Amino acid sequence: MRATVIHGTRDIRLEDVPDPTIQRPTDAVVRVVASCVCGSDLWPYRGVRATDRPRRIGHEFVGVVEEVGSDVRTISAGDFVIAPFVLSDGTCVNCQAGMQTSCLHGAGWGYEDEDGCFVDGGQGEYVRVALADGTLVRTPQMPDDALVPSLLALSDVMGTGHHAALSAGVGPGRTVVVVGDGAVGLCAVLAATRLGAERVVAMSRHDDRAALARRFGADDVVAERGDSGAEAIRQMTGGIGADAVLECVGTKESMQQALDSTRPGGRVGYVGVPAGGSELPIGQLFSSNITVGGGVAPVRAYLPELLDDVLAGRIDPGPVFDATYALADVADAYRDMDARRVIKPLLRP
Amino acid sequence: MRATVIHGTRDIRLEDVPDPTIQRPTDAVVRVVASCVCGSDLWPYRGVRATDRPRRIGHEFVGVVEEVGSDVRTISAGDFVIAPFVLSDGTCVNCQAGMQTSCLHGAGWGYEDEDGCFVDGGQGEYVRVALADGTLVRTPQMPDDALVPSLLALSDVMGTGHHAALSAGVGPGRTVVVVGDGAVGLCAVLAATRLGAERVVAMSRHDDRAALARRFGADDVVAERGDSGAEAIRQMTGGIGADAVLECVGTKESMQQALDSTRPGGRVGYVGVPAGGSELPIGQLFSSNITVGGGVAPVRAYLPELLDDVLAGRIDPGPVFDATYALADVADAYRDMDARRVIKPLLRP
Repeated sequence: MRATVIHGTRDIRLEDVPDPTIQRPTDAVVRVVASCVCGSDLWPYRGVRATDRPRRIGHEFVGVVEEVGSDVRTISAGDFVIAPFVLSDGTCVNCQAGMQTSCLHGAGWGYEDEDGCFVDGGQGEYVRVALADGTLVRTPQMPDDALVPSLLALSDVMGTGHHAALSAGVGPGRTVVVVGDGAVGLCAVLAATRLGAERVVAMSRHDDRAALARRFGADDVVAERGDSGAEAIRQMTGGIGADAVLECVGTKESMQQALDSTRPGGRVGYVGVPAGGSELPIGQLFSSNITVGGGVAPVRAYLPELLDDVLAGRIDPGPVFDATYALADVADAYRDMDARRVIKPLLRP
Repeated sequence: MRATVIHGTRDIRLEDVPDPTIQRPTDAVVRVVASCVCGSDLWPYRGVRATDRPRRIGHEFVGVVEEVGSDVRTISAGDFVIAPFVLSDGTCVNCQAGMQTSCLHGAGWGYEDEDGCFVDGGQGEYVRVALADGTLVRTPQMPDDALVPSLLALSDVMGTGHHAALSAGVGPGRTVVVVGDGAVGLCAVLAATRLGAERVVAMSRHDDRAALARRFGADDVVAERGDSGAEAIRQMTGGIGADAVLECVGTKESMQQALDSTRPGGRVGYVGVPAGGSELPIGQLFSSNITVGGGVAPVRAYLPELLDDVLAGRIDPGPVFDATYALADVADAYRDMDARRVIKPLLRP
């Protein structure tokens, strides 16, 4: 089969690799229907994180089960499944607590599982899924192809935006600010709206993204960033800042902007992968009683609930995918996302 | 009158100073019945924070109102009152949100208020209280003298321990670890017990403090600290750490111990004044989804509720005061607390 391999900075190639097969009785093999490029894939693409050897890449996909191992109980051949961006067994103490991203036996796409068996990356034609029961979520029936983008968004960005909102205590009566207008930030706007926020302010200086933020429920859009962005937010919130700020970028600057936009006693929910060695200024947090929560989102925990809403038409995160590429053009997809020409590229094998 | 003045490192003096008088119609003058030394007073005492000029010190006291200004509504001469460790107007947007420590017009004991009038420190015979209505809380009647230590604890340490517990989401079913066995840590044990925690583990290597922690409801005491302390906690909690960890010290080391003792998805509530430039390691927080909340405790918000419990005999934080000094011996009180010979000294003018 063909799968995407990153060789180094800005060096993405589609290559012939071995077809995956069942290795363990808890495995499944899935034919990928759609996958995509993540903002976090851009860190190695840009060289912010080193790529010391060629490795498979991609951690978001949906597909159809081809074959399952003898111990798999909840998934069958022919099922349409959504894969969260990490693997988890679903049974350990952390999974039971809804923290599947801290699964004691978990693994990452494109790396070895705990048995030392290689797990394929998501940006390919097929994937061996270890821990299939704990990891995959099936849809009740084969979805219409038009639903694929919204279902694919549940692999990562919608659940991640939801995690930011939950971590910041978003709910009715809350004024919410979203820092970051990538796919995760836009999904955070949608998640905050879904959770009943009173007012949602998106921070974006790109017309297309601002328009999508408004479509997802943003009441206001602020184009300023950094100190002037935070000042604009304070001016909109009685001088003190918002109740909840969702940090969906992951840089030191974006985190500072988020903290400076939060009222005393307010909460920052952050889901941007911390890049650039950002640490949190505890003196500011202490004096203002700002709570910081979030992290690598346990999207597996949220998938059933969000899937229900997608299937019922209550949310439609699919429009974050504003461009579709054939898998053969995956290098173009990375290039265009890196250049911010597209929000999030969808890949069709 | 006489009041305590810090001149520099380990230089505490009781001096003759001007008697306070009503300066503004919102003022009260209070005769101090009891005050005390705070762990945070030890930072300037030890020279961790510089004292650039002699200044009045002390921010916890209870007393009897001598006189009130013409605009004071809730407090009258003769009332017994409890003073939280900062002044607040009770009316601004932050006070209304329960964040009196971020009052837009607040002030600190021993500093100037927003009108430029000097506010006395708490370790003296009398205090001019600015913003008396927003700041002071009166008891329904003159309390028995035996209750004074418990009421004085509501000035700071009991409310601060409660804030740590609330910030960490303590409640029924939760396993709670308390880092720090000073008066705040001990009150945090009491607060966690009061909030219905399933299991409370105190970290202490001092027999007298450990005994008081058990009296306040601790189920277990762990004497190890640092890495081995965190490892001991993980061994007690199925290998993963506690649901809620209350950081009541304020050093980089104690915060790291707290983080290392918290399970994935758990919460750290911290109230120790950050000393030594501690920043939070966001990479660890991100990968484990540990939420960090807390800060300078808005004890004014909690005072009515905690006062009810003290008066009803449901909680008795008074025993954190394990030694009483005449105000004339305030320098001895600092010396003995610094040497950890006493947990918290109570001062009687």
